[in-house]
Amino acid sequence: MLDFRPIFYVLGLLLLILGSAMLAPTLLDLSLGSISWQGFALAAGVTVFAGGALVLTNRVGEVTLSIRQAFLLTAASWIGLSAFSALPFVFSELRLGYADAFFEAISGLTTTGSTVLVGLDEMPKGVLLWRALLQWIGGIGIIVMAVALLPFLSVGGMQLFRIESSDKSDKALPRIREIAGGIALVYLFLSGLCALLYWEAGMTGFEALAHAMTTVSTGGYSTSDGSLGHFDSSSIDWIGTIFMVSGALPFVLYIRMVRGEPLALWRNGQVRYLLGFLCLVALAMALWLSREQGMDYGHALRLVAFNVASMVTTTGFATTDYGQWGSAASISFLLLIFVGGCTGSTSGGIKMMRFQILFQVMRRQFWRLFQPSVVFPLTYEGRPLTEEVLGSVMVFFFLFLASVAAGTLALTLLGLDFATSLSGAATVLANVGPGIGEVIGPAGNFASLPDAAKWLLSFGMLLGRLELFTVLVILTPGFWRF
Amino acid sequence: MLDFRPIFYVLGLLLLILGSAMLAPTLLDLSLGSISWQGFALAAGVTVFAGGALVLTNRVGEVTLSIRQAFLLTAASWIGLSAFSALPFVFSELRLGYADAFFEAISGLTTTGSTVLVGLDEMPKGVLLWRALLQWIGGIGIIVMAVALLPFLSVGGMQLFRIESSDKSDKALPRIREIAGGIALVYLFLSGLCALLYWEAGMTGFEALAHAMTTVSTGGYSTSDGSLGHFDSSSIDWIGTIFMVSGALPFVLYIRMVRGEPLALWRNGQVRYLLGFLCLVALAMALWLSREQGMDYGHALRLVAFNVASMVTTTGFATTDYGQWGSAASISFLLLIFVGGCTGSTSGGIKMMRFQILFQVMRRQFWRLFQPSVVFPLTYEGRPLTEEVLGSVMVFFFLFLASVAAGTLALTLLGLDFATSLSGAATVLANVGPGIGEVIGPAGNFASLPDAAKWLLSFGMLLGRLELFTVLVILTPGFWRF
Repeated sequence: MLDFRPIFYVLGLLLLILGSAMLAPTLLDLSLGSISWQGFALAAGVTVFAGGALVLTNRVGEVTLSIRQAFLLTAASWIGLSAFSALPFVFSELRLGYADAFFEAISGLTTTGSTVLVGLDEMPKGVLLWRALLQWIGGIGIIVMAVALLPFLSVGGMQLFRIESSDKSDKALPRIREIAGGIALVYLFLSGLCALLYWEAGMTGFEALAHAMTTVSTGGYSTSDGSLGHFDSSSIDWIGTIFMVSGALPFVLYIRMVRGEPLALWRNGQVRYLLGFLCLVALAMALWLSREQGMDYGHALRLVAFNVASMVTTTGFATTDYGQWGSAASISFLLLIFVGGCTGSTSGGIKMMRFQILFQVMRRQFWRLFQPSVVFPLTYEGRPLTEEVLGSVMVFFFLFLASVAAGTLALTLLGLDFATSLSGAATVLANVGPGIGEVIGPAGNFASLPDAAKWLLSFGMLLGRLELFTVLVILTPGFWRF
Repeated sequence: MLDFRPIFYVLGLLLLILGSAMLAPTLLDLSLGSISWQGFALAAGVTVFAGGALVLTNRVGEVTLSIRQAFLLTAASWIGLSAFSALPFVFSELRLGYADAFFEAISGLTTTGSTVLVGLDEMPKGVLLWRALLQWIGGIGIIVMAVALLPFLSVGGMQLFRIESSDKSDKALPRIREIAGGIALVYLFLSGLCALLYWEAGMTGFEALAHAMTTVSTGGYSTSDGSLGHFDSSSIDWIGTIFMVSGALPFVLYIRMVRGEPLALWRNGQVRYLLGFLCLVALAMALWLSREQGMDYGHALRLVAFNVASMVTTTGFATTDYGQWGSAASISFLLLIFVGGCTGSTSGGIKMMRFQILFQVMRRQFWRLFQPSVVFPLTYEGRPLTEEVLGSVMVFFFLFLASVAAGTLALTLLGLDFATSLSGAATVLANVGPGIGEVIGPAGNFASLPDAAKWLLSFGMLLGRLELFTVLVILTPGFWRF
């Protein structure tokens, strides 16, 4: 039998942290004299109470987790935290229905950035801070999960990133704690720097802070309905572009850079793939756009670089309604949804590592066709690719695409149109944010969708964020059989 | 250096056969007093002349092919035959442009069934016979290629179907010849039976013959703009459904049935997968349709069974404009385009075998997550799945989807809309025929597309028909390096 106590215990601890985080918007609204502090205080109370109750009733000596408990804990924490993060949206003067509130909360924590809220510019500052905080907390949670947990759960090829000392179990935990601490410092530093630059470039202090939190976490929530396009500033666009990309790079490499390997980022194949891909797509699309629309090349490059980086890093900011650029641009942005950034970053999607491995497998398969005798060993960053890793990566690709197909079909059955369904399913699974088309495109939002669609899309965000396997394995009957 | 002589020699022989086949429509139009016999006679003359010239100038003692020559020959024959098959459309009173004629010809030979012709009901019988003949010839060509050639070229997992005695090279060729002869007999028998039943059910002799040829070959050309819906007959629909499926089953199994294994078809996993999938989808969709549209369940089942079988077997007939059933139905039909029938049949698409293998890999990957010690040997029809076969199958999936994505993007750049581009790319790669949407949906056709799009789609048909690898390997620089 599975012992659920350690799962509830850790979940309780996480809820206590979440409840404390709700104090930030409470205090902000209180200091601004906004009535909505009461909603946050109530939500904080409920969350802390629930967290405390879970901790007290499920106390265990030392937390040790089996593989199955680790899977359950991972899924349960993201669902539990989202469920309570939704409360401020319900209790505040927004008075959101719970489906909307949950959608907004999980979209925040998973750093997806799809929103059901309209009228952001006039909203209480506390709500805007809470949305930014959700993405910021979610972002660091994702990195730590990707570095410390997923490699040991062998999810989607992440076993490649097991830390060397993992076989000596007495050293693994301190090593992970140390790395998590380093990641937090880097994350804080990048966020602070980004906020400072945004502020320098003309944002108010609050806007700069909120956007820095949602940029580095590749989240995409904004304080304005116009997203970053609201500021219409070239420097803000380029700052955003650079920091979205910085959030999509492997965070352990930053630590190695600080610790005496200044070229760690540049030498990394995954980073080069991502940067090369971004430059190639941005330059080509800008050329096409400037010709097609008679636009100045510099302006086209600014627009394209930002919006392409926003899609590929799975942030989801927009500075223009690229839905107006025609169906070729729409298809391009739809395809970009699938790409994703690097592993061990805040970004979602399929991710560069998997494409690198796929291309190696493809090259080998072609060579074999006319040179059957050639031996073609596959490696990734110096490590041999075992058949198990290859299987994980290949199955990940298929599961991702099959999930998009299933999601699309389900959304059309709920009455949504073709483009909304397809891009909606893809954008939540890749944790990007906006889709294409008039409803959920860069100029639209998810408010008008039926509740059933919102629940479905929320599930899609969870599925994508936990790299599919982590959720799906729990749904297999075999998981529960022992 | 590559020796092109055997390639040209075999191509010449094939052109001689094609030229002779053009005599059938010539004689038909001559006997009906139609002037268009002259076009066919001219095309036949040109084709026989070209074939004869190639044979005479490239005579080789005995034809032996290296792997690279075999790849080149395969691609060259399909392109060469299509190029000459297009001539009757140019020379006849249709006076098609060459892009249109080539599109129609390769769509026929690859049994895709996308058409640029409107007004079929009033067209010279010779043209209609030629279109049916193209698909019928293409169909048998595909089966023989899939049974005798692709397994030895190790294309997309087809190495699983190498004939047992293949390692004893002295026995392989007679064995293949014997099997090819058996397949031709089965193909003739099924076509004859289908024609007879169509005729019994109310078609004229000519219509019955033409439709039988395009049903068993899972081609989809019709003698009417209304496709099989023109006849509005329940028995014709069900005959069509059954014979489309019969064309999508592995033809070697028919031979084994005749040779004393009456249950060979039923015992085959791939056949069960296909039949099970078809029944499941048809029953579920009919239920949905009868509720949604308030239709009688029996009528809904007839419509759905036919049109679903038409998509999955990659035939492409239509009996109704299912584009009118809403976006959920459109998405379903779009997804069905990808499925495909069985290997070693006339159908295209990804095919059941690859899904069976994929599901096994997926199951193993999930088991490994929580039971890392379990050994999970993968087999297919009793044969162990080597890492090479698994790689071929996985890469095939990715190449197929990447080709659809690239094709979609290219078509939108040519100015087509989203649904037309996506479904157009998918339908030609899977050799189905119609797409979704108003332009190329079941009620539309490809005539209005720009020439560049027609060439692109023609290339897609070739790519899909030759299981991607066969064409793509020729385009890799390494292929030409030795």
